[in-house]
Amino acid sequence: MRIGNLGGRLVIVRDGRAVDVEQASGGRFGADPQAVYADWEGFRDWAVSAALPDGVPVEPSELDAPVPAPRQVFAIGLNYREHAAESGFDAPEGLPPVFTKFVTSITGPVTEVTLPPGGHTDWEVELVAVIGRHSRDVAEADAWDHVAGLMAGQDVSERVTQLAGPAPQFSLGKSFPGFAPTGPWVVTPDEFDDPDDLELTSAINGEEVQKGRTSELIFSVPLLVARLSAVLPLLPGDLVFTGTPAGVGLGRDPQRWLAPGDELVSHIEGIGELRQRFVPA
Amino acid sequence: MRIGNLGGRLVIVRDGRAVDVEQASGGRFGADPQAVYADWEGFRDWAVSAALPDGVPVEPSELDAPVPAPRQVFAIGLNYREHAAESGFDAPEGLPPVFTKFVTSITGPVTEVTLPPGGHTDWEVELVAVIGRHSRDVAEADAWDHVAGLMAGQDVSERVTQLAGPAPQFSLGKSFPGFAPTGPWVVTPDEFDDPDDLELTSAINGEEVQKGRTSELIFSVPLLVARLSAVLPLLPGDLVFTGTPAGVGLGRDPQRWLAPGDELVSHIEGIGELRQRFVPA
Repeated sequence: MRIGNLGGRLVIVRDGRAVDVEQASGGRFGADPQAVYADWEGFRDWAVSAALPDGVPVEPSELDAPVPAPRQVFAIGLNYREHAAESGFDAPEGLPPVFTKFVTSITGPVTEVTLPPGGHTDWEVELVAVIGRHSRDVAEADAWDHVAGLMAGQDVSERVTQLAGPAPQFSLGKSFPGFAPTGPWVVTPDEFDDPDDLELTSAINGEEVQKGRTSELIFSVPLLVARLSAVLPLLPGDLVFTGTPAGVGLGRDPQRWLAPGDELVSHIEGIGELRQRFVPA
Repeated sequence: MRIGNLGGRLVIVRDGRAVDVEQASGGRFGADPQAVYADWEGFRDWAVSAALPDGVPVEPSELDAPVPAPRQVFAIGLNYREHAAESGFDAPEGLPPVFTKFVTSITGPVTEVTLPPGGHTDWEVELVAVIGRHSRDVAEADAWDHVAGLMAGQDVSERVTQLAGPAPQFSLGKSFPGFAPTGPWVVTPDEFDDPDDLELTSAINGEEVQKGRTSELIFSVPLLVARLSAVLPLLPGDLVFTGTPAGVGLGRDPQRWLAPGDELVSHIEGIGELRQRFVPA
């Protein structure tokens, strides 16, 4: 099942058509795309057995952020070995770096993004997990049961801000407006042959710049749910940006940054793509 | 004016008595302590001229978090020179380190806090600013107009988690449950002779361990609002933990951590105090 946000209304997307959930459920579930995660299991149970109408044709460019207002956004750093190396860090053990993308940076899948003046704006395609249940001290073996689904995400990163100051600060430089495109929809784990092994790529103006597989994650989605929930409760609708594979601009020689007019396409196998055009301030 | 949260209901606290805002306003303002910040100026204008009833006696220990569900929590690192030095960092220039305290860590002013097993739990008294208006590219000179008020806060910090991994991670080690006590109320800026110069202290079992003044902040409240709002929009009800003065356990020789049974009292001039008792897991 694929869950989207069409103009602020919760929809199920099937075969390129969007079914309005509030209408199809006779009001049992409301229109708010965020609120569905508070009763995710009830929703899922209804949705898999409901006789749904055909819905209306929909393009990804019409969709907004599938989870527009998460209460907690966890973003994981250095979670692929080659990316940790290209960033100049050892690979993490025990616990990866955890930061946030502030919620005002979240957008839908197809957007224009303003390049911060004087900045070095970089790309990071990432698998994003959406939490479906209150999660505290979850065992790794049980963790997929706590995940509502998966999205594509871009952890767009402005490196001058990120590297400013006496200690590295991931959160702020990764939270300019539009720096967290997500979507195009939330895909439930049952849709994948293996939700722990998905190819993810990014390309600039058609040139592939990143290619990896989520099976290469040092901390997999279930392990992240286990480790995070050992520290604090994860809430329904929380997001986990799981980290990016090698190939970012920071790690190149010479370094490379996004420029006005560039189009960045981020793709994850079995989910779909994000498409961002970068424009000057 | 002092704004509090009594059992999930918005109250004005005067002379040790709590006035229920929904009742006193005849329903013009609702009971939700978080929602008031969406119409902060309307609320403030009403509250300063309203004929309020006496209310009921209230103790700080009865109050919950004044701002229980902020959409964004900004926490500032290394914002006092002596604390940056005791932490082994240069003082920041241009932009301080910005991290988050995840929202599940927020509590009211008088609480018990469970010590994470195997951790090194430390204290950090901080002034917390509450944003009162949508704020983007705010000039430092105008910034106090964007602040609803000030609270006391504790940026309780578990140093083992904070220092785990190849890059320092402030957010996670500072977000265990109960690690963000706030309150006891939001005090509006007009209540202070000088809101930029407040004494703040913390004491363990009656022994003073931190003492500073907010006039020593490298980035003052108005400068933080200016610098943060240059990156992203600040939303009504967002919190800014402004950083802690010297005297934390990490910077001592020998280092010192909170132990089961310890009582930590954090006080800010013109606001009041927080009181935390630490208990084993």
